[in-house]
Amino acid sequence: MNAPDLDVLVKVQRRPVPPAFLDALAQRFGDRCSRAQAVREQHGRDESPFDVPPPDAVVFCESTRDVADAVKLAAQHAVPIIPFGVGSSLEGHLLAVQGGITLDLQRMNQVLRINAEDLTATVQPGVTRKQLNEAVKHLGLFFPIDPGADASLGGMAATRASGTNAVRYGTMRENVLALEVVTAAGEVIRTGTRAKKSSAGYDLTRLFVGSEGTLGVITEVSLKLYPLPEAISAAICHFPSVAAAVDTTIAVIQMGVPIARVELLDANAVRAVNKHDKLALRETPMLLMEFHGSDAGVAEQATTVQGIASEHGGEAFQWASTPEERTRLWTARHRAYFAGMAANPGCRTVTTDACVPISRLAEAIAESVREADESGLSYYIVGHVGDGNYHVAYLVDPKNGAQFDTAERLNLRLVQRALRLEGTCTGEHGVGLHKQGFLVDETGEGGVEMMRTVKRALDPLNILNPGKIFSL
Amino acid sequence: MNAPDLDVLVKVQRRPVPPAFLDALAQRFGDRCSRAQAVREQHGRDESPFDVPPPDAVVFCESTRDVADAVKLAAQHAVPIIPFGVGSSLEGHLLAVQGGITLDLQRMNQVLRINAEDLTATVQPGVTRKQLNEAVKHLGLFFPIDPGADASLGGMAATRASGTNAVRYGTMRENVLALEVVTAAGEVIRTGTRAKKSSAGYDLTRLFVGSEGTLGVITEVSLKLYPLPEAISAAICHFPSVAAAVDTTIAVIQMGVPIARVELLDANAVRAVNKHDKLALRETPMLLMEFHGSDAGVAEQATTVQGIASEHGGEAFQWASTPEERTRLWTARHRAYFAGMAANPGCRTVTTDACVPISRLAEAIAESVREADESGLSYYIVGHVGDGNYHVAYLVDPKNGAQFDTAERLNLRLVQRALRLEGTCTGEHGVGLHKQGFLVDETGEGGVEMMRTVKRALDPLNILNPGKIFSL
Repeated sequence: MNAPDLDVLVKVQRRPVPPAFLDALAQRFGDRCSRAQAVREQHGRDESPFDVPPPDAVVFCESTRDVADAVKLAAQHAVPIIPFGVGSSLEGHLLAVQGGITLDLQRMNQVLRINAEDLTATVQPGVTRKQLNEAVKHLGLFFPIDPGADASLGGMAATRASGTNAVRYGTMRENVLALEVVTAAGEVIRTGTRAKKSSAGYDLTRLFVGSEGTLGVITEVSLKLYPLPEAISAAICHFPSVAAAVDTTIAVIQMGVPIARVELLDANAVRAVNKHDKLALRETPMLLMEFHGSDAGVAEQATTVQGIASEHGGEAFQWASTPEERTRLWTARHRAYFAGMAANPGCRTVTTDACVPISRLAEAIAESVREADESGLSYYIVGHVGDGNYHVAYLVDPKNGAQFDTAERLNLRLVQRALRLEGTCTGEHGVGLHKQGFLVDETGEGGVEMMRTVKRALDPLNILNPGKIFSL
Repeated sequence: MNAPDLDVLVKVQRRPVPPAFLDALAQRFGDRCSRAQAVREQHGRDESPFDVPPPDAVVFCESTRDVADAVKLAAQHAVPIIPFGVGSSLEGHLLAVQGGITLDLQRMNQVLRINAEDLTATVQPGVTRKQLNEAVKHLGLFFPIDPGADASLGGMAATRASGTNAVRYGTMRENVLALEVVTAAGEVIRTGTRAKKSSAGYDLTRLFVGSEGTLGVITEVSLKLYPLPEAISAAICHFPSVAAAVDTTIAVIQMGVPIARVELLDANAVRAVNKHDKLALRETPMLLMEFHGSDAGVAEQATTVQGIASEHGGEAFQWASTPEERTRLWTARHRAYFAGMAANPGCRTVTTDACVPISRLAEAIAESVREADESGLSYYIVGHVGDGNYHVAYLVDPKNGAQFDTAERLNLRLVQRALRLEGTCTGEHGVGLHKQGFLVDETGEGGVEMMRTVKRALDPLNILNPGKIFSL
């Protein structure tokens, strides 16, 4: 088992960026190519706790042609390229560890087509999930994938994101129909059609979903949409222990209840969101749930779940049926990350992301709680527990190396346990810089070597987000 | 647009099979390596209409080690390897167009593990879908993917199969959790864990699902299972025209009804199954539907669908709620392929497999019906219409070249139309030998070249089912 060695992971191995390349870039993009320190620094970090010098330049792309031209120039000079959406990565995906240029795709923010009758939409990569939902709301449709942050859909595809609705609607893996991608040679390909299913050759769409910018730059995303449910109801339920909340979730999933969301917050997380969002939730472990369906279906699901929760000591089952109440609760949940940091001013968050088969979830979380309590670190736990996915967020003082080391030691043990329980080191955040050793432990040298072989074949100059997922 | 040129596609380019290789194979596998003409011929064809000389030998594998050893020997001598399940491919996937050896995996038929509490199972590749369903039935679980044939699960993964339940439960793309694969070098890798979701590096699982044996030999499959629904109800409904049945389906899908199966049979298909299965179905276009859920949920869905069907002229809505009635109807549906051939003794079937966005389905099918009627060929239509996927099966006399040519010309026009309507040339059968030109039309040279690049990188000697999906 390879513990993340932060010194190794963030070792900067900058590659030369020839002046001729920067000149050509400036000529092609004019003032949409910036070398200003502030712009570079803004693009040189994400939500990960790593500090790395920023990229050499930032290009603001406005079209697929822009991306293709930038990549072609980069290929001519073997300069690294990093695609950038809104910068919400948690694992260092966006950091310029080998230098090079960042392609800011935020201006590629057009919803290109909505095919309501087919429940599909095609968007540029800079469109965020909230923007897409605004655009389709009047049609009675929604896009369910919700990682918390208002991330760009290109970035969500690139990290195979998921979040709160995945237990019912799947992840980006299931919800991307097709992509347009700029290859390492600057060519533009399409990876699929708008058909709901296909057996036409290799699944290039799924090869790019989760490839973290290392195989191509995503320039269009075709997505599935869903009819807004006739009825939506949210509920919270408090539990005497994290274990009781987890056992309730396991029973709900094993019964086959089509619950739309089932989120765990431990007492620490509840405390943080209470303070940050001025709520008055009882500060015990809780589940925040949502039910989608017909009126009768939602009532049926809710009755089943309420019964299961009661059997496990759940109490104070509270309904939030108005959109306003629901929004308030889910906003609080989504702010847990920032609430945690706000409760510990100046800290950074080291987040774990294990996902295990549902039957192993109770064991996985119980041990994580015990170890976190013993460590003395500030922490909280949130989880998309219906999927077996949970996050222990350790809050560490960036100046305190011992705290970082403790957090990483806990992370290592948590991942070791998840793998032993037949789970994965990352349910939804991706590998980035942080989990490269874990990936080897999980997939084996043979599997990672296969990934490297694909990477070398499709990006022989190693210019596409180099240094991420694995070292070459 | 490239029409399939059968002469080119089935041009046999046999590669040398050195006597030393066959000796080594015989030594390693003894009488589990057969060169008997009958055994070779049995493995030298599938359900496609192509005639190709059989492989040079057949090896009956009983373990992953067997597969790995066979592949290693083949790699030493650059001899082609073709994995074989039950031989139900429709597109020539199993034909030895470059000679070499077939690995018969039917003896690898163990259900290795059932994790009922996680709704997962791990099986060897020779386990068939019916066998798996028998093995999990007593646990109240089922595996929904149902391509009609009692195919092997390894083969279903390799072709990204789907079938009647896909409209609700997805395809093999969504239902394979992880694979064990023997690579072109004879090494064994695992592509994932039993976690429900993961962002751990490239999606090797999805790279192998649908790769048709060209990237590795699948030796284990981990799959999702589902709780048997509390209530299941099937219904048939007759329509005045194929268009009315299709329009009903479109409305049902667009309303978001979670229908489990919705199958179209045109009057020709109904006639064939009536005769073959001694049924007395009214010989008009019909939908065969199934609803899964709670008692209340099934009733709700059925009421909605019945209302929609009536609006489109559907009548004689008949329920089949007992398992026996349901089985009789679904068995008849599944036998449509053989019923069609039985109605035309001595014929072969040329099957199309287009899949289009649901809003384009009416147009796609209407034109196909018109062209088929005009052609004078015997044909019938069945379709997983809830997914936008339909099959026109042309019944041709294998000795009548003109009929074959007509069928292929219709196939070409049908695919051209599907692509124009933003669909795919193959919803579930795969590319095999037959659709290689269509794949280029659909994905573009750039996309196919990317597939070739991946293939060359992972199988540099081109020993894994060579000549399928694309030419190198």
